[in-house]
Amino acid sequence: MAPMAKPKATPEGRARNEEVYRTAAQLMVQKGYGGTSMGDLAKAVGMTKAGLYHHISSKQDMLFQILQHALDGLQRMVIEPAKRLKDPEERLRETIRLNVLGIIDQGPKFTLLFPERHHLNQAQQEVVAKRIQHYRTFVRDALREMANQGKLRDLDINIAQGHILQTIVGIARWYTEGTVDDEAHLVEQTVDYHMSAILKR
Amino acid sequence: MAPMAKPKATPEGRARNEEVYRTAAQLMVQKGYGGTSMGDLAKAVGMTKAGLYHHISSKQDMLFQILQHALDGLQRMVIEPAKRLKDPEERLRETIRLNVLGIIDQGPKFTLLFPERHHLNQAQQEVVAKRIQHYRTFVRDALREMANQGKLRDLDINIAQGHILQTIVGIARWYTEGTVDDEAHLVEQTVDYHMSAILKR
Repeated sequence: MAPMAKPKATPEGRARNEEVYRTAAQLMVQKGYGGTSMGDLAKAVGMTKAGLYHHISSKQDMLFQILQHALDGLQRMVIEPAKRLKDPEERLRETIRLNVLGIIDQGPKFTLLFPERHHLNQAQQEVVAKRIQHYRTFVRDALREMANQGKLRDLDINIAQGHILQTIVGIARWYTEGTVDDEAHLVEQTVDYHMSAILKR
Repeated sequence: MAPMAKPKATPEGRARNEEVYRTAAQLMVQKGYGGTSMGDLAKAVGMTKAGLYHHISSKQDMLFQILQHALDGLQRMVIEPAKRLKDPEERLRETIRLNVLGIIDQGPKFTLLFPERHHLNQAQQEVVAKRIQHYRTFVRDALREMANQGKLRDLDINIAQGHILQTIVGIARWYTEGTVDDEAHLVEQTVDYHMSAILKR
């Protein structure tokens, strides 16, 4: 394999980084963060340990870069397209749809790695927590706007937001376990499930 | 601390086991299965390594015993009481209610340890998978009976079952993160959320 690209490099470099992050994430999910060594990571991505250390300073740094990469994808593939929709119900539907699709297409392994974030240092944890909070707020804002339009039944918006995002995370696990056979059906059922849960009858 | 009790021992022994499992689970969730050693486990539960090896044969065995213990609790505190209810809607409501309460009261750490089950040996994994499948079937049966009564909107029962159980698992994480302040409110909102999601309008 070619060496990892520096951040903000060429499209080829970004594709190479994507491949490295995906392989490293898969290994960390499989063996657990604590059970994965820099040697394991180097071997999996086809580099020497010295070569890997040229690009990342530690296993912790690798975890941080992977999570940042996953959150960049969330921003680019879910939040940015969805936020162009003015109508909050349409925006929420599109957010759920794109997030489920993104997990299926781009990497359930990234999603499953988020519970390992407590292994990051304090500053890194704060960066990740802030970005997750940003997404939670994005979903909550859509719910609040729908409530203001009188569209929602009487419910706790914070809890609804938590349930919505939790089922999406859950799909990453099913997908890894090979129990998703019809992606479009799963997306549609998931959007409908939450809309039925929240909309006023 | 007193030594661990043999299985099926006195009530005091069971309470001691519960305490050991809880402490060990907490450590494994915090450090990850791969990052936890038998020495760490022995220290956390206040035993020598030799003393701990007297009761469990390996770290893998400890993980298996903890998960079995958690599944025993699920059977005793959720499935057994709920299955006495003939009406499927009442049974499903009670299942969700008891499962959320059980996670809050008895151990979010146990729930968060289930993703580590791929570290078990094949035979152990099959035992755990079978018991989880039993619970999934229990929830799905209630949904199917409700569908037969004409109570459900047109939905995929397997996906609904997945979403329901996934939000309950999610609550284990919120609780650990200290974001649950009103348990009764959370239980009520969670039951209502799913009932609104599935019942025919």
